[in-house]
Amino acid sequence: MAKEKLVKAITSMDEDFAKWYTDVVIKAELIDYASVKGCMIIRPYGWAIWENIQRIMDGMFKETGHENVSMPMFIPESLLQKEKDHVEGFAPEVAWVTHGGAEKLEERLCVRPTSETLFCDHYKNIIHSWRDLPKLYNQWCSVVRWEKTTRPFLRSREFHWQEGHTIHATAEEAQAETIQMLNVYAEFAEKYLAMPVIKGVKTEKERFAGAVDTYTIEAMMHDGKALQSGTSHFFGDGFAKAFGIQFTDKDNKQATPFQTSWGVSTRLIGAIIMTHGDDNGLVLPPAVAPIQLVVIPIASHKEGVTEKATEVYEKLKKVCRAKIDNSDNSPGWKFAEYEMKGVPLRLELGPRDIENNQCVLVRRDNGEKVVVSLDELETKVPEMLEAVRDGLYNKALANRSEKTYVATTMEEMIQIADNKPGFIKAMWCEDRACEEALKEKAGVSSRCMPFEQEKLTDKCICCGRPAKKMVYWGKAY
Amino acid sequence: MAKEKLVKAITSMDEDFAKWYTDVVIKAELIDYASVKGCMIIRPYGWAIWENIQRIMDGMFKETGHENVSMPMFIPESLLQKEKDHVEGFAPEVAWVTHGGAEKLEERLCVRPTSETLFCDHYKNIIHSWRDLPKLYNQWCSVVRWEKTTRPFLRSREFHWQEGHTIHATAEEAQAETIQMLNVYAEFAEKYLAMPVIKGVKTEKERFAGAVDTYTIEAMMHDGKALQSGTSHFFGDGFAKAFGIQFTDKDNKQATPFQTSWGVSTRLIGAIIMTHGDDNGLVLPPAVAPIQLVVIPIASHKEGVTEKATEVYEKLKKVCRAKIDNSDNSPGWKFAEYEMKGVPLRLELGPRDIENNQCVLVRRDNGEKVVVSLDELETKVPEMLEAVRDGLYNKALANRSEKTYVATTMEEMIQIADNKPGFIKAMWCEDRACEEALKEKAGVSSRCMPFEQEKLTDKCICCGRPAKKMVYWGKAY
Repeated sequence: MAKEKLVKAITSMDEDFAKWYTDVVIKAELIDYASVKGCMIIRPYGWAIWENIQRIMDGMFKETGHENVSMPMFIPESLLQKEKDHVEGFAPEVAWVTHGGAEKLEERLCVRPTSETLFCDHYKNIIHSWRDLPKLYNQWCSVVRWEKTTRPFLRSREFHWQEGHTIHATAEEAQAETIQMLNVYAEFAEKYLAMPVIKGVKTEKERFAGAVDTYTIEAMMHDGKALQSGTSHFFGDGFAKAFGIQFTDKDNKQATPFQTSWGVSTRLIGAIIMTHGDDNGLVLPPAVAPIQLVVIPIASHKEGVTEKATEVYEKLKKVCRAKIDNSDNSPGWKFAEYEMKGVPLRLELGPRDIENNQCVLVRRDNGEKVVVSLDELETKVPEMLEAVRDGLYNKALANRSEKTYVATTMEEMIQIADNKPGFIKAMWCEDRACEEALKEKAGVSSRCMPFEQEKLTDKCICCGRPAKKMVYWGKAY
Repeated sequence: MAKEKLVKAITSMDEDFAKWYTDVVIKAELIDYASVKGCMIIRPYGWAIWENIQRIMDGMFKETGHENVSMPMFIPESLLQKEKDHVEGFAPEVAWVTHGGAEKLEERLCVRPTSETLFCDHYKNIIHSWRDLPKLYNQWCSVVRWEKTTRPFLRSREFHWQEGHTIHATAEEAQAETIQMLNVYAEFAEKYLAMPVIKGVKTEKERFAGAVDTYTIEAMMHDGKALQSGTSHFFGDGFAKAFGIQFTDKDNKQATPFQTSWGVSTRLIGAIIMTHGDDNGLVLPPAVAPIQLVVIPIASHKEGVTEKATEVYEKLKKVCRAKIDNSDNSPGWKFAEYEMKGVPLRLELGPRDIENNQCVLVRRDNGEKVVVSLDELETKVPEMLEAVRDGLYNKALANRSEKTYVATTMEEMIQIADNKPGFIKAMWCEDRACEEALKEKAGVSSRCMPFEQEKLTDKCICCGRPAKKMVYWGKAY
């Protein structure tokens, strides 16, 4: 049967999770490899997921008062160098433009790896008085980082993202913005991607280049590895000082403003795949699925089936993103195809269903089949889409709970890290040397210091000195 | 008065049209200049116009069956070189990436000036059978062309656009697509931008590098100069052959497919400015205006004014993109500010208006003031927005008619070209030498051979041999 053939076309998750992942991105037609090493072509089905993410998230940004802008894609070398930590972090991995046509440029330009320096340069031009503050800007674009090893969506030389850049009169306001946007990311991940996340702050070692504090949402993938899914940075006034941005405050004095930046990327598509996918392929959260329901006529050569299926489709188009597949492929082939593509609901309609004024709805997440009266479809389908979202969320949460461990000694830490992929909660003294020792001995990095702190023991797991923070440790993408 | 001060802050159109243009783009806060020469920062108000253009046009693309994709921003040098005419046209003006971090790349990459070569490379991978055709793809992105002289929106080294790239089993189908998309562009320009355009085909000299035919919509700016506002190209099978794209047709034979591409860019924002703007600043067509109506309370310190104005604003938010300005600036300052920003309608509401249950609506395009009952606002405002669109369209059409001339001899052509900026209709033999002679002697280029042909005389205006086409000639941006 065609279905079995297709299913067998992808590696099973348990056999080789990395191979399963690349099989899914190709077979579900999310990407194609490009002639440019380390870059990817995002195909219509993959891009439609990103468009849905953009649309929802952009609405959330605008509701919180942000405006979109567009900065150039190039940064002159001298501009990139203005903030010392920042250039150290990014210069080793930027792509350099050296020639325009046949002429050598007077100054090299890098293709933006991130746009803090461009925003600072612009802010210096447009900010003069407290009346000009805050500026709450965002841009949707692609950026380039010349990575050595790449994987579709997770790490590619060019990737799409949004980068918010805001500037405020006070540190308190900028800090509040940083946390607000982290909360927006967490809400988006949990509500729309059905992906539970842990909110916390990064250690100094894992901070963004140039930031005072980096906040993060960390998700756990099906295989127990962590995926940093969005970050929000508080810059203090470091960038403003480096770029000479000043404003006249309400007391008519010169003051230095405070900045933030925050971003999520097409990495989120990788997160969706690895959080919800299974051996039949992709499983998409309904909110971002390009097709939320596919109508598949059964025995469509029989009189009236295609007509009725079309009628049902036309009705459902108004309540969800529906598609009908009237192609001459077999129902079995179609089942496998839309399972591979992760369509949340399948609607089967055959001659007997029509006689009984009903159809069968099948959930992609758990295979559950429900017989539904055709008269109730318009209320039942949105309910079932919501149920799919809840099902996905709970499954992902259960996976995370199951794979979250506590370590109180180094031996335990190493033992868990070697044998049980997942998050490991352990106490830490805040000394970077201990963090580095954990990396070396157990192969784990600090994922975050969660907002929800617990006191597991009094002592740092590494050095035994008094502990200051509980940290989530783990292996990460 | 503040208003006068602001108005005087921009050069008048008649005094210096080029200076007026740059004054408007800066004072209306559409752009800021960037540290990267020839690139621009598109500010929130400018970017919101582009977002509106994108939203409407993307809907039109999807209605005609197109899907969005995302190609890499880099093209390896060897890939760019595959189609001979194409590389000759673009290689002199591309930006070259030569280094990734500290390492020199094995092969130079250009930042895409346009993406035909990337699409062809992808099509070769994914097209095998007639069942895979057509592919109707589009992407929204920015491209780079290393221009010597630049002007905001009209010609910049990086600019934003959409590029459609389609591939078909037959030449007829590809030709129909080319014309269909030209018609989409023309409809968009006329209906949403209130900008009349002439549809036609480019001469061989003006064709896109690698195209068999280039179709265009040409608009006339306020100063009589032409602006090429959108192009649609039929490629025949040239690219497919150069890239070795083949498919198995219905008769099981190997066949070569046919291609098109089509694009419009942020140039359209320049077109809007120069078609509709006036000495008070920008004038925006309602369909793409970020703010369609601004509510300005008059004597807002008087009891009840701010409350009533807010009530009106809340009501109007549901029928248009409305804004209320409750700032402490004077009404005169606000009038000038929103005139500069081209907001189509201004709503003034003062204590006496409130007593009479009315307000004053002022049209940006012609200054017309109408007293409207507060009870009728929700129907009256959309009507007036439509009237502004019609008013703008008719004014632009009148400008074009007035500045369209006929020349039947070279003397006439030179005389008109030297003294009357505008379109000049004249007959042509289709010989490139005559086209070049017209450029040299009269300083005009062929804008297009319009679909609506007229027979002005029998002879080519240049050489006197039998004429084959009527051409629109002119000076262009």
